[in-house]
Amino acid sequence: MNNNAMEKLKNFMGDRLLTEIDERVSYGYDGSFGQYLPDCVVQVLSTEEVQQTVCIANEYEIPLYARGASTSLSGGPLPVHGGIVLDFSQWHSKLEIYPEDLIIKASPGVITGDIHKLAESYNLMYPPDPSSSSICTIGGNLAENAGGPRGVKYGVTKDYVIGLEIVTADGKVLKTGGNTVKNVTGYDLTKLIIGSEGTLAIITEATLRLIPKPLDTRTAMIIFDDLYTAGQSISKILTSGVRPSKMEILDRNAINKVVDYAGLDLPREAAAILLVEVDGDPDVLSKELDIVQEALKKIGVDDIQIASDKEEEARLWQVRKLVSPAIVTSGYTKISEDATVPLSKIPDMFRKIDEIKRKYNLNIVVFGHAGDGNLHPTINTNMRDSDEVGRVEDAVEEIFKYAIELGGTLSGEHGIGTMKKAFLANEISDDGVLFQKAIKKALDPKNILNPGKIFPEPGEKRLVLQND
Amino acid sequence: MNNNAMEKLKNFMGDRLLTEIDERVSYGYDGSFGQYLPDCVVQVLSTEEVQQTVCIANEYEIPLYARGASTSLSGGPLPVHGGIVLDFSQWHSKLEIYPEDLIIKASPGVITGDIHKLAESYNLMYPPDPSSSSICTIGGNLAENAGGPRGVKYGVTKDYVIGLEIVTADGKVLKTGGNTVKNVTGYDLTKLIIGSEGTLAIITEATLRLIPKPLDTRTAMIIFDDLYTAGQSISKILTSGVRPSKMEILDRNAINKVVDYAGLDLPREAAAILLVEVDGDPDVLSKELDIVQEALKKIGVDDIQIASDKEEEARLWQVRKLVSPAIVTSGYTKISEDATVPLSKIPDMFRKIDEIKRKYNLNIVVFGHAGDGNLHPTINTNMRDSDEVGRVEDAVEEIFKYAIELGGTLSGEHGIGTMKKAFLANEISDDGVLFQKAIKKALDPKNILNPGKIFPEPGEKRLVLQND
Repeated sequence: MNNNAMEKLKNFMGDRLLTEIDERVSYGYDGSFGQYLPDCVVQVLSTEEVQQTVCIANEYEIPLYARGASTSLSGGPLPVHGGIVLDFSQWHSKLEIYPEDLIIKASPGVITGDIHKLAESYNLMYPPDPSSSSICTIGGNLAENAGGPRGVKYGVTKDYVIGLEIVTADGKVLKTGGNTVKNVTGYDLTKLIIGSEGTLAIITEATLRLIPKPLDTRTAMIIFDDLYTAGQSISKILTSGVRPSKMEILDRNAINKVVDYAGLDLPREAAAILLVEVDGDPDVLSKELDIVQEALKKIGVDDIQIASDKEEEARLWQVRKLVSPAIVTSGYTKISEDATVPLSKIPDMFRKIDEIKRKYNLNIVVFGHAGDGNLHPTINTNMRDSDEVGRVEDAVEEIFKYAIELGGTLSGEHGIGTMKKAFLANEISDDGVLFQKAIKKALDPKNILNPGKIFPEPGEKRLVLQND
Repeated sequence: MNNNAMEKLKNFMGDRLLTEIDERVSYGYDGSFGQYLPDCVVQVLSTEEVQQTVCIANEYEIPLYARGASTSLSGGPLPVHGGIVLDFSQWHSKLEIYPEDLIIKASPGVITGDIHKLAESYNLMYPPDPSSSSICTIGGNLAENAGGPRGVKYGVTKDYVIGLEIVTADGKVLKTGGNTVKNVTGYDLTKLIIGSEGTLAIITEATLRLIPKPLDTRTAMIIFDDLYTAGQSISKILTSGVRPSKMEILDRNAINKVVDYAGLDLPREAAAILLVEVDGDPDVLSKELDIVQEALKKIGVDDIQIASDKEEEARLWQVRKLVSPAIVTSGYTKISEDATVPLSKIPDMFRKIDEIKRKYNLNIVVFGHAGDGNLHPTINTNMRDSDEVGRVEDAVEEIFKYAIELGGTLSGEHGIGTMKKAFLANEISDDGVLFQKAIKKALDPKNILNPGKIFPEPGEKRLVLQND
């Protein structure tokens, strides 16, 4: 990196400019693959520091990689072209609630779980709840438009952000949106920036919308003999008149991983289990679960267990939370996909994944947010076994293509990052890529904001696995 | 307009190219002000016809104005620079429901109310419900990101669109989003295009998300002695734990207009009334209204009437629907604003409007979507009385500036169009205008898509009233 640039950074960042190799190395990876080495790291604590850093990067054309807690599963924060990592994880100084306005204002490094706690202490709720919420930052959630199990009823991160403060590629500080839920003044930059993976601007503050916390929840576990019926039951429940607040599925493989990992009492022989939560007034929750039960009876499903108390309910949700750790500890590398399909196509997707699993002889675990068609087919693989890695590549490609064929998407909530960019045009077409690139070029003409993400580079044909 | 261009349009549009003055004249106005004359009108019925028209406009650099049912209150479809009007109102051929996927696909000319009816016939609901829903088109709703009374619980148009087909300024047909609620593949063009007022691309199809229709509704009318307490009660209700599905306010002036117009039995002496609807399971609705009542008691409000049956409930909502017609027929020109403020600032906004009304000696009626801070201060004025029009200008400017000062916005749901562009920079700053213009320029470099909207033209200082 240019010495003058480094000197300038040093001048205002002091000790919070990290340049030693051992420091830099730990900023080179995330929850996906690959290890890259940034030239330096700045641990920013204010909008002014971000702005000054961006101005230097703009002047010297240095790549800028914003980073929260590095839990990304798509390579979002990876410094693939070196340059400067903006470490936001230390900037958690602002977390303010305005209960009368039903909003929270937060700096980018605030942990998502702390937002939940603050909202709940006022009997309010911030619905987005990615699995990593106890460690991930709101900044990362905003960059990737994180989802979570409540998406089926409450939507995703984007649905709860009404305003941002951003720093543009040329170092200007802008406000987008504001403190009101409705706002149609000019283009909706808030919703454009959220989910743009740090490639259009850098977020330095967010205004989040809250809703009243539901009075109570109840949870049912539905046990299936075959995967196809499990898939079918999802549409059936969602058209029964009830709006579940969560609807998560685990296939046999996932169930057994959790049983092995945590010794929980679950039906090992089931083809799948579906966990359904309803929320709202306690007086109607049983009635709602009755409606769900009635709807399922019509397709011959009657093995339903309703949690009798809060402990049992917590245990059921613990099962879902343990799937990822169970897969990670069961060995080798975990490749998490999040192809998403229309609700009526979930049975087809299950059937296809089963077919692919056998065709390529792979260990695929399927679980995910069934209620919005967002499945997480997850593969355990040995990265040193190049034959197996090749089969993984083929399998993942086949899953992507089938999801698109069904009217679905490459990514429901993880983002494109480095992991899926080779397949971008499959979904949005070459013209679509050009249209999106025109926006990128207009807002970041020197390509300094998170370069190497979302858009495929020339000749890129496969997953990052084999490009490394 | 260029003769060759006209000839080319004639070739494929035939009778559906309108060029006579008496035909063109009726495409020159909308629900706001001003009368403009397009060079011609094409009554498009397919994506191909839109695409061909755009290609011709692009080649000859002719302004293109997309138009639905012309109910816009902000000048959205006005052909301010002549050119071609794309009349979408005849293209209502596609209205398809996929109940298992909880989606509807619609062509741009479909009436919003027909979407409601189709969804409800499957026990589903499409929540956005602008007052004009029985006559407006979904295309116009998409262009303006229309709101409506259910916004407080269910959000606005943008929250229910998961995919679009669009024609870009250079005549390419693109799909954005898809058939899934979650999608983070590349930039969120769907949400960028919706609400961009026809300035970034032309929408030719939309995929709308549905939700289960709530089982029942109940409505309460709350009567206030003073406007400030009415404002206060809104936050109070929204933090009580209940989520009302509608929350509409009418001030004394609005109440009396409706009484005069329709002879309804309403408290003429009240400072304001608030209509609150709750929806969901019938067993909890009374309980929820009890919670609302308890919350209001704490601030000394106890004049609450709960509709005892469906007829009474319908009558109460009829009151809200009649406000606009009542104002229109009471004489002169109706100027509808939709400045929106954070919930806790509603009492301040009411106080300010009252002050402005007296200061400028104007007839201002206040009503609107109280639950999301979206007020409609509406002025009746005689456009031939230039002194009064001057006072209206000053009053409106003061309302805009105060809304922004309170952390609110110029426009909650009507859009900027021609009506508010002079004030755009007040809200989003000069740098913000440049950032938005960069997007516009990247996607429509020849400025053929709805030119003259959103962005102020040089020297533009006041409302359109005095620019005409």
